[in-house]
Amino acid sequence: MTTEKIDGVSVTTQASVYFDGKCVSHGITFPDGTKKSVGVILPATLTFSTGAPETMECVAGACEYRLASSDVWVKSGPGETFSVPGNAKFDIRVAAGAEAYHYICHFG
Amino acid sequence: MTTEKIDGVSVTTQASVYFDGKCVSHGITFPDGTKKSVGVILPATLTFSTGAPETMECVAGACEYRLASSDVWVKSGPGETFSVPGNAKFDIRVAAGAEAYHYICHFG
Repeated sequence: MTTEKIDGVSVTTQASVYFDGKCVSHGITFPDGTKKSVGVILPATLTFSTGAPETMECVAGACEYRLASSDVWVKSGPGETFSVPGNAKFDIRVAAGAEAYHYICHFG
Repeated sequence: MTTEKIDGVSVTTQASVYFDGKCVSHGITFPDGTKKSVGVILPATLTFSTGAPETMECVAGACEYRLASSDVWVKSGPGETFSVPGNAKFDIRVAAGAEAYHYICHFG
């Protein structure tokens, strides 16, 4: 099961554009103040840095990720999640020609 | 004044990715069923086709647009809107090196 929509939220209209647009996300805020983002990563290999811990939930497409603590690339597809500690780096790659990786980023 | 956020909506988690990612948008649905999208256009010159009429509202960055009925490129910046008839083509360009054009697309 993938999360196809998120109800009852406030959407930040200005996107966050990272890596020359290889990653684009929009922030959402829940009524209780919880913040998440919905985004997409285009074919590329990118290194991200977390502030708060993050859980990445795939809603379409797929990526491979590699945590800073590992040499192993792990695939993450629709309905799958992976978690990254706070103040850590991690790599995401989407193969050239593949569908983009669509995700929800959960913080904390 | 720009529209910085949109409250009380349902967000479609999977983005729409057009033109190899030069345009990325997320759909939003209001409680009354009205649909809009929030998106971003990276530096490029792109031709879009409407189904329903659209009004494009800039929330950050800027673009130039050219309607099919015109030879003139017109700038649209934060807080400005322009409208496109239904079943029409229009061009948008964002200059190389410029900030992306962030928009809300209103349908109908």
